[in-house]
Amino acid sequence: MTAETTSPVRLQAADSPDQPTPTPELQELYRGFERELLVPLWTEIGDLMPLHPKSRAVPHRWRWAELLRLADRAGHLVPVGRGGERRAIALANPGLGGRPYATPTLWAAIQYLMPGEDAPEHRHTQHAFRFVLEGEGVWTVVGRDPVPMNRGDFLPQAGWNWHAHHNAATRPMAWIDGLDIPFQFQTESQFFEFGRDAISEEERTTPERSRAQRLWGHPGLRPVSVPGSQPGSPLLAYRWADTDAALTDQLELEAEGYAGTVEPGHAAVRYSNPTNGADVLPTIRVEMHRIRKGAQTAPRKEAGSSVYQVFDGSGTVTVGDTTWSVTRGDLFVVPSWQPFSATSQASASDSDSGALDLFRFSDTPIFEALHLHRTHVEGTAQ
Amino acid sequence: MTAETTSPVRLQAADSPDQPTPTPELQELYRGFERELLVPLWTEIGDLMPLHPKSRAVPHRWRWAELLRLADRAGHLVPVGRGGERRAIALANPGLGGRPYATPTLWAAIQYLMPGEDAPEHRHTQHAFRFVLEGEGVWTVVGRDPVPMNRGDFLPQAGWNWHAHHNAATRPMAWIDGLDIPFQFQTESQFFEFGRDAISEEERTTPERSRAQRLWGHPGLRPVSVPGSQPGSPLLAYRWADTDAALTDQLELEAEGYAGTVEPGHAAVRYSNPTNGADVLPTIRVEMHRIRKGAQTAPRKEAGSSVYQVFDGSGTVTVGDTTWSVTRGDLFVVPSWQPFSATSQASASDSDSGALDLFRFSDTPIFEALHLHRTHVEGTAQ
Amino acid sequence: MTAETTSPVRLQAADSPDQPTPTPELQELYRGFERELLVPLWTEIGDLMPLHPKSRAVPHRWRWAELLRLADRAGHLVPVGRGGERRAIALANPGLGGRPYATPTLWAAIQYLMPGEDAPEHRHTQHAFRFVLEGEGVWTVVGRDPVPMNRGDFLPQAGWNWHAHHNAATRPMAWIDGLDIPFQFQTESQFFEFGRDAISEEERTTPERSRAQRLWGHPGLRPVSVPGSQPGSPLLAYRWADTDAALTDQLELEAEGYAGTVEPGHAAVRYSNPTNGADVLPTIRVEMHRIRKGAQTAPRKEAGSSVYQVFDGSGTVTVGDTTWSVTRGDLFVVPSWQPFSATSQASASDSDSGALDLFRFSDTPIFEALHLHRTHVEGTAQ
Amino acid sequence: MTAETTSPVRLQAADSPDQPTPTPELQELYRGFERELLVPLWTEIGDLMPLHPKSRAVPHRWRWAELLRLADRAGHLVPVGRGGERRAIALANPGLGGRPYATPTLWAAIQYLMPGEDAPEHRHTQHAFRFVLEGEGVWTVVGRDPVPMNRGDFLPQAGWNWHAHHNAATRPMAWIDGLDIPFQFQTESQFFEFGRDAISEEERTTPERSRAQRLWGHPGLRPVSVPGSQPGSPLLAYRWADTDAALTDQLELEAEGYAGTVEPGHAAVRYSNPTNGADVLPTIRVEMHRIRKGAQTAPRKEAGSSVYQVFDGSGTVTVGDTTWSVTRGDLFVVPSWQPFSATSQASASDSDSGALDLFRFSDTPIFEALHLHRTHVEGTAQ
Repeated sequence: MTAETTSPVRLQAADSPDQPTPTPELQELYRGFERELLVPLWTEIGDLMPLHPKSRAVPHRWRWAELLRLADRAGHLVPVGRGGERRAIALANPGLGGRPYATPTLWAAIQYLMPGEDAPEHRHTQHAFRFVLEGEGVWTVVGRDPVPMNRGDFLPQAGWNWHAHHNAATRPMAWIDGLDIPFQFQTESQFFEFGRDAISEEERTTPERSRAQRLWGHPGLRPVSVPGSQPGSPLLAYRWADTDAALTDQLELEAEGYAGTVEPGHAAVRYSNPTNGADVLPTIRVEMHRIRKGAQTAPRKEAGSSVYQVFDGSGTVTVGDTTWSVTRGDLFVVPSWQPFSATSQASASDSDSGALDLFRFSDTPIFEALHLHRTHVEGTAQ
Repeated sequence: MTAETTSPVRLQAADSPDQPTPTPELQELYRGFERELLVPLWTEIGDLMPLHPKSRAVPHRWRWAELLRLADRAGHLVPVGRGGERRAIALANPGLGGRPYATPTLWAAIQYLMPGEDAPEHRHTQHAFRFVLEGEGVWTVVGRDPVPMNRGDFLPQAGWNWHAHHNAATRPMAWIDGLDIPFQFQTESQFFEFGRDAISEEERTTPERSRAQRLWGHPGLRPVSVPGSQPGSPLLAYRWADTDAALTDQLELEAEGYAGTVEPGHAAVRYSNPTNGADVLPTIRVEMHRIRKGAQTAPRKEAGSSVYQVFDGSGTVTVGDTTWSVTRGDLFVVPSWQPFSATSQASASDSDSGALDLFRFSDTPIFEALHLHRTHVEGTAQ
Repeated sequence: MTAETTSPVRLQAADSPDQPTPTPELQELYRGFERELLVPLWTEIGDLMPLHPKSRAVPHRWRWAELLRLADRAGHLVPVGRGGERRAIALANPGLGGRPYATPTLWAAIQYLMPGEDAPEHRHTQHAFRFVLEGEGVWTVVGRDPVPMNRGDFLPQAGWNWHAHHNAATRPMAWIDGLDIPFQFQTESQFFEFGRDAISEEERTTPERSRAQRLWGHPGLRPVSVPGSQPGSPLLAYRWADTDAALTDQLELEAEGYAGTVEPGHAAVRYSNPTNGADVLPTIRVEMHRIRKGAQTAPRKEAGSSVYQVFDGSGTVTVGDTTWSVTRGDLFVVPSWQPFSATSQASASDSDSGALDLFRFSDTPIFEALHLHRTHVEGTAQ
Repeated sequence: MTAETTSPVRLQAADSPDQPTPTPELQELYRGFERELLVPLWTEIGDLMPLHPKSRAVPHRWRWAELLRLADRAGHLVPVGRGGERRAIALANPGLGGRPYATPTLWAAIQYLMPGEDAPEHRHTQHAFRFVLEGEGVWTVVGRDPVPMNRGDFLPQAGWNWHAHHNAATRPMAWIDGLDIPFQFQTESQFFEFGRDAISEEERTTPERSRAQRLWGHPGLRPVSVPGSQPGSPLLAYRWADTDAALTDQLELEAEGYAGTVEPGHAAVRYSNPTNGADVLPTIRVEMHRIRKGAQTAPRKEAGSSVYQVFDGSGTVTVGDTTWSVTRGDLFVVPSWQPFSATSQASASDSDSGALDLFRFSDTPIFEALHLHRTHVEGTAQ
């Protein structure tokens, strides 16, 4: 655990403006507060109740090449199995005290599985997903339904579903995991159960389509046998071919003069739950953005935080006062209420289109559910 | 800020079971993780993803007499005004590192206002309420509507409403404030604005009923001029006479052989939003419980945390492994997934009925909105 | 059954504008349609798909004195009991073919119970309510809970609850019943069950407050033992004292310069379901309106129909092209999309305030649930 | 208009059991009722409030060959244009008095458009759809977006959207229209507006995919530029290839031993609104059912009515006491609470699979929204 749980009650800022003069009587009062485990508002309010979110998280970028190198090294040194559960290596935002938190609410990790390896079955209330930058050969087994994972696929994993993974290929495979671990850790709502140590031979098959996709993967159609709304999406994988086609269609509609994109040159789709049209997971919003070659997005602030991974292309991104160049696989975080914009700047090695494809996940559903969400786009009325 | 933001990335438990042997190669890998701001799951999973919530908060009880003594002392030493905003003194759970957090999500404080004093106008996204154990003479002015505060009254204050307080009496007055400050601090969704430094003479009036009560305080009736659902309750005060009558009715129905109580001898009402029947605030559930003299509640665990104040009567309460005797005004916290039960044990100085009245607030609406809520009552199926 | 079920297929308007020339070939085609049980759109569209609702119902007023006289006569001639079930006499809108329909969706009747009489227990999916213009002494027994009925009380009766009535007084009592019988008849969704022929002695008691009121009649408070939303209100009676106070408060707020009324001089409350803040019944909206002496409401059109009863005072009301004077007890209907306005014109015999109190029920929840509701107030943008 | 609006008030069943003896006094009372436009409940209750829905509609089957023959004849005799609006010929249930109502709530018609013809633009609150049994060459233009129509396609048309049709082919084309015209007629909520008499050249294009499909036709993905829930589906066509694949998948899952079908040998998909997962139209549920060769569905009763069209295959269907053989294109109705079952019995001329594909639409969303829906499947608990 961090130091935060062991500090004594602490009074700060007693010499800041707006604070009463530190007379002996006041100091005696403050000692009384400490003895009784009390803290006054007037010494803390600027920190606790700022005029707008001032994130402890800081903007940061992680290079995919470095992540992959370390993950591969871990693949050779660290076994995967019961107890450690997953060979996952998480982004630790430098503003968050060394905790494995990409942002105050979101976990983002690279997961790595060697040929023939299994990650054992478990389930937890934390909502999760996987997103595949590259590679193939792993099937994630959700409720005994093997789901293939290929480049560009997004696989939601709503809380409390049993799941395991197995690598059926002859090469290692890496992907990213996103979860709401920090949120559930802070709010203390998390449950966890171990499942079977090994999956059955039947689950070790490698179908091209999961049973979930066969039931739920047809646009606008739902099985009559499963009515009603479910908190998390029953569609266990969203295929890249569909996502790519949807983004292509938006940019073509824009070129023909019709509505569809978020702003000029900026297409975006949101992964949605087909049972209710809402976010694919109750606490995590997931989207894919495509920024046309040369286009730039308007700076945008949101209450709540995001993690991005560059799926394809190159460009520069600006978060608050920081600007980085990014390329395929790089990850970065956008803390709460920090303005974010991105520019697509194709390099020689990028694909023909030159578009910048950004995979994004955020904690927005939490704030929308609680009526706490705010957004501001530069150049629009607040 | 706490130490949590300055710690380096940290790897723990490397010698615990389930951890790989700490070879030189592994240590080199771990140094690579630190350099790249990464943390592996396998060293953290037991802490991050426990089998059930293991709260950092600890059960704790604060004595009202002591709180009141210190608040009164502050009333004489610390002015109230712009900047510090409120003479509020918060419970700091000993498990939470000295932060003014009663639980990981909830703030609870005693607020104190001297005769003739004003607390200046402001508004914030944090949802708030006031609850009055004793005293009178303060009006809270919400959107320029003066709302009287008397013993037993509960006053919700949904986020982003302007509010100020003024003490129109000749004696100081204390009450408790509850807010979701820690939740909004952790999730970084908070906004704050200063209002006018002084309220007008018109707002300094002291009506017996607020305008909000005149519009919304009639059972089952709503003004046709204000249709639809609102996130927070427009009814700005719930009067003790109503709460007391509702609890009395439940126990009498039970005595006559009809349903109504939560369990034998245990009546409870929930403060609700008349526009949608839901919780009075989007993030905070608030209830009043009455335990008949001699009755005991079944131990109950919930995902999420609560703060209680004894409104009347005496008894003993058990939280996890801790049991305290409590009496009027005492506050205590129930951390996530810790079993809680209470017994009413009237003392000589208590009122005739001998019932134990417990005011409670909790973060349950957060979990219900996100499909994360769980409850278990001892003796029932899990 | 009405004639409507026995008519042959019928082609009309063949000589109207927009119709094709009635050649022999066309007439042969039309005979083919008749043989095959077909009707073309082009001969029917003006009737079926008008530019706006053109109600078959017509504005009509029924005088209370006459209703009461006939009901009393029925009280002496027609027994109440199993089979006929209720001594209820329904308004039959002259535009609706002699059916007992006040409007195409709503039933309104005067019900009459002699001293000592019982109306036997039954239940049905039709949603119902009772509203008491005058008299006392009847208890309606809902789910074995006796509910008193007094002047000004509104008693909702959500579908599929068992209910009976008994007159415990020495005088007859009359009240009005409102139901969605025509709606459920047209859509063919109705179920009905007979209950016990006699209620028990225990149910024959005459408490001042029902058990439902003791559980649900406290403003803004709900029993913790009954969480969640219910389609119909569990509060089985809304007392006149509360309704009157709410209307008085709105007019006083207006006089003080604050918002609260619907328009100047026009206060209104809506009976609401405390479990969700929505309409008191899933298909019927119920409101009480008070128009200050001398005030007049702006003409208002709504998709859907209403029935009004004058609860107190006198005035004139205009529905479409028709204007009537009305006084205590009179009932009238406002068909769909017909403009309605009312003026309060106290007569010598009215109460001091001179206000016109109008009880109203309508089918609006049906249209709101199906996204079909429209309203237009004269003088505002459409 | 039908006879129903002109009948006098009428008292029936006065000599039936449960009716009071028809004394002169009673007859005088009944004459009083008639004079005052009143109808007693006790003479009507058996009809108005039956123990379960007793539909005025009767089971009936229409042969597609005959419909098509008459529609083609109308194509040569009746022009399509402003005023008549559409060359649509509606099923008139023999129980419903010659009105163009397939059931008390639903309209079903064959529409026919000659080569080069346009149906003029209009919009209405009635929710509508088109379903294509055979043919091609017509584009429906919704909000200026041309949408192709091909065999097996389902095209929803939510209320109040502008729409027109044009036949760009060299042959006539027929399809069926479904609307909630009778429901909106009975409840009197309908509005209608004429649009442009001619569509523009730009709208006369014949794209393979509509703009709506390009925005909304990607499984589980929604455009970020259009957040929120919409009452009717923005996806303007559901293609047969998707529907067929979904049904095939369900039967294959069943064959492999997994869940997916409604019952053995009976696959079914529901067309859904991608913005909320709910029914594709606020008042109409639409489904495609596939019954495997030789399979039979369990008899099922529902509150509310349905219309079916055989899309492919042959079989027998039983509605209440009536059984018909049906083949491609035949339409039939299932009135409220009449048991329905179907058996697939391939004939020599059917496709290899021998399955029976049934397109179905019903008024179920009305009842679900109002908490009035009931279903009973034979052999299950009621």
